Amino acid sequence: MSLAERVLDGEIRAAARLMRDIDDRFKSAVDELKILYPHTGNAYIIGITGPPGAGKSTLVDQVVAAYRKKDLLVGVVAIDPTSPFSGGAILGDRIRMNRHADDAGVFIRSLATRGALGGLSRSTMDVLNVMDAMGLDVIVVETVGVGQDEVDIVSTAHTTVVVMVPGLGDDIQAIKAGILEIGDVFVVNKADRDGADRTARELTAMLEMKHPEPGDWMPHVIKTEAAKGLGIDELVEEFEAHRTYLKESGHLQRLIEERNAKIFADTLREELFESVFGAIKENGKYQQILDGMRDRSTDPYSAVEEVMAARSFS
Amino acid sequence: MSLAERVLDGEIRAAARLMRDIDDRFKSAVDELKILYPHTGNAYIIGITGPPGAGKSTLVDQVVAAYRKKDLLVGVVAIDPTSPFSGGAILGDRIRMNRHADDAGVFIRSLATRGALGGLSRSTMDVLNVMDAMGLDVIVVETVGVGQDEVDIVSTAHTTVVVMVPGLGDDIQAIKAGILEIGDVFVVNKADRDGADRTARELTAMLEMKHPEPGDWMPHVIKTEAAKGLGIDELVEEFEAHRTYLKESGHLQRLIEERNAKIFADTLREELFESVFGAIKENGKYQQILDGMRDRSTDPYSAVEEVMAARSFS
Repeated sequence: MSLAERVLDGEIRAAARLMRDIDDRFKSAVDELKILYPHTGNAYIIGITGPPGAGKSTLVDQVVAAYRKKDLLVGVVAIDPTSPFSGGAILGDRIRMNRHADDAGVFIRSLATRGALGGLSRSTMDVLNVMDAMGLDVIVVETVGVGQDEVDIVSTAHTTVVVMVPGLGDDIQAIKAGILEIGDVFVVNKADRDGADRTARELTAMLEMKHPEPGDWMPHVIKTEAAKGLGIDELVEEFEAHRTYLKESGHLQRLIEERNAKIFADTLREELFESVFGAIKENGKYQQILDGMRDRSTDPYSAVEEVMAARSFS
Repeated sequence: MSLAERVLDGEIRAAARLMRDIDDRFKSAVDELKILYPHTGNAYIIGITGPPGAGKSTLVDQVVAAYRKKDLLVGVVAIDPTSPFSGGAILGDRIRMNRHADDAGVFIRSLATRGALGGLSRSTMDVLNVMDAMGLDVIVVETVGVGQDEVDIVSTAHTTVVVMVPGLGDDIQAIKAGILEIGDVFVVNKADRDGADRTARELTAMLEMKHPEPGDWMPHVIKTEAAKGLGIDELVEEFEAHRTYLKESGHLQRLIEERNAKIFADTLREELFESVFGAIKENGKYQQILDGMRDRSTDPYSAVEEVMAARSFS
């Protein structure tokens, strides 16, 4: 049996192996992904983001537990930020998630953001397709919302959840308007803290000012204390309400199509670059260019034009 | 006179105009950059990064003032993070930098990170080349160290400065090891705060554990209170020491070459993608692919292979 067939049978070890092959960019992994593709499009994907310290991992842990109580198979993709300053999540996720470690109904995968530009987005999409094809019902993508890449990825989820906490300072208040655009559900976590009600009220007021069209989704603000499991049931109900909205409005189909278009574009970009860059390294042209830039007889812009002109892309 | 010639004459309005053209991806901007290229490689580039709230902008402001006192022309490239959560810098930079607004010896440019993957890196490099060619002596690139893109950009500076503050919490302490790799100079800002000495001591101890080879640069930890202008002279002396090291060791030449290689690769990647993606949109192939993915008769991976196979990249 091929790796893909074993994944379709729900074999967890085969899925883990394929995900490693994807990370290592094995050519064979692409062939497996092709076989899996017709079996994707069934999982419900929830993206969770928020600033460091908002308690996202604890919240994810509780959401996983809630879906497991419904006997659903759950996947978690934890995107580890590699920024030297965004800290903590790398250790934190693994430790907290341990309580699901022996549960065969929970599949956890961490992805590091270190790597080529665009690489994270591509790997995440591929991993989501593997989890989807292996029959997981719900997949939670979690990332600290610190870089544009991470936010872009979370935005491609079916339901995007923005987690805030009270008292993270004026900086965040000042640009709170920016987050209104990406969230389908807003969470004020650590709701026992001072100012939680105010944060929730302000968020709600700002969301209401957006004046959605009739029939549009109106995001709500849910207060949680993830560490105590409070507010989780309401949150999961809100997810289900949004999912129903997506299905009935036809937006779910559009989101699935957008994700596939993004996989296509990201893959094409990298394949094109690798082909051409590989070729000019092999035939000595790249070394010529480096030499020319050093002695200033060429420049990077002219060198690109020269490489482009030598090829046909029509 | 061409825009590039006016930039070479040090005309600030021409430089500002060319940077806008670069942002807008005008084809003409590439031609101007080609003319400027032989005149680059003279500016000293300092990259400053650190977590939100470390006081980076105030520090940059003081460093700018210090170099202006030496009658050097100074450029600042402030990279605004677009993450909805990394907050504050967008407003903060502009306000604080105002004290240099009437100084013709200071050229400030803000770059937003929103946009295509790789776009930020490419624009920043291009803007640095314009500032370099217009004859600025020192260019400071400032960014909040929240995403991999930002950190990568700062790492391409000649001297990379990591700004920390005491008491930012355990999360940052836990992964402090990661930041040791990118910094040439470390700053503990807000040095009047509790724990500053401890943070500085710990950083120094960790740096010493790296056991550099004889002749390697040994990064030092400088304590500053940027808001009061304390420690700035020592910091600028450390910059100059590092710059001397770079020149004498030959590393400066290598850094310049690496930056040019990166401009070439980033530009090639985008040009290749735009050409091919543009062509398949124009000839209807892309629509076929979208339709095929929708009815599952194709998948994104096979579609990329098909597009690649129809072209020659050798």
